[in-house]
Amino acid sequence: MITRFAGLTPNRSRAVAHDDLVFTVAVAPDPVSSSMYEQTAKALACIDESLALCGSDKSKILTAIVYVADIKQKGEMNRAWDEWVDSKNPPMRACLGVDLEPPHIVEIVVTAAK
Amino acid sequence: MITRFAGLTPNRSRAVAHDDLVFTVAVAPDPVSSSMYEQTAKALACIDESLALCGSDKSKILTAIVYVADIKQKGEMNRAWDEWVDSKNPPMRACLGVDLEPPHIVEIVVTAAK
Amino acid sequence: MITRFAGLTPNRSRAVAHDDLVFTVAVAPDPVSSSMYEQTAKALACIDESLALCGSDKSKILTAIVYVADIKQKGEMNRAWDEWVDSKNPPMRACLGVDLEPPHIVEIVVTAAK
Repeated sequence: MITRFAGLTPNRSRAVAHDDLVFTVAVAPDPVSSSMYEQTAKALACIDESLALCGSDKSKILTAIVYVADIKQKGEMNRAWDEWVDSKNPPMRACLGVDLEPPHIVEIVVTAAK
Repeated sequence: MITRFAGLTPNRSRAVAHDDLVFTVAVAPDPVSSSMYEQTAKALACIDESLALCGSDKSKILTAIVYVADIKQKGEMNRAWDEWVDSKNPPMRACLGVDLEPPHIVEIVVTAAK
Repeated sequence: MITRFAGLTPNRSRAVAHDDLVFTVAVAPDPVSSSMYEQTAKALACIDESLALCGSDKSKILTAIVYVADIKQKGEMNRAWDEWVDSKNPPMRACLGVDLEPPHIVEIVVTAAK
């Protein structure tokens, strides 16, 4: 049983649920002129929304892969992460510097349990 | 129960199936002198083959991570994606600019249900 | 049922187990002045430790995503991989050139069965 939740763009889903696993991805929805800290906080808020759509929440996140456009700003991403994460239930996490389509400077892919 | 499907290179598999999940990766098999559009279309055809080996198909893809060597060519990758994807069953997808081993300019990692 | 194994850094886990899946990430624990070959071998040894914590081992790895800071050193990463991998049970693998936080030059994300 696969349940798909449409995003803003055709031909991809913002979240997909299958059995007891949930897969979701987010960027900041209005990224222009916002900092790494702000974009990360907004992307994490989108992750919260998508998890809720799927009947999950951040306490059940298994893995998070955080892609940033400038690895030197990892500290600012971490600041938003540390404010947001469920510290009693932290996911496995990797943070990687990649090229993203401007104006996005952070994109987050999450796997969670339901 | 884990089933592994060998690729061209020793010490890694082109696809691995476990319970009702399938994991597969593809590049274009003959990438020399081919464009982002062509390499993407060929890599997606390999994904189709691997999913078939595992008893799955593109309507059951949960997630796709598309790695491109030049994020400015994301539009050309998208053109191949949009022609190929099952629009009624779109996966969660992320597209990231990374360094790939030449002559590869696109590599795609997929998780699917069986 | 989610089991989390703490790493050195707060707010993330070195490994997370859920049902019959295990997710883990590793870098070399003492990366200063060590080569791609050495950092890869040390990161893979950490993966072994994390899998053991979760009741799994390298014969049950489903996927490995290897992030390297210099794709031109993929050969040196491969040398450590080929010495380490269970050749009878090779995972699906992708190797991608990304920016990592120095002094790390390789980071490995693994999904395994229990």
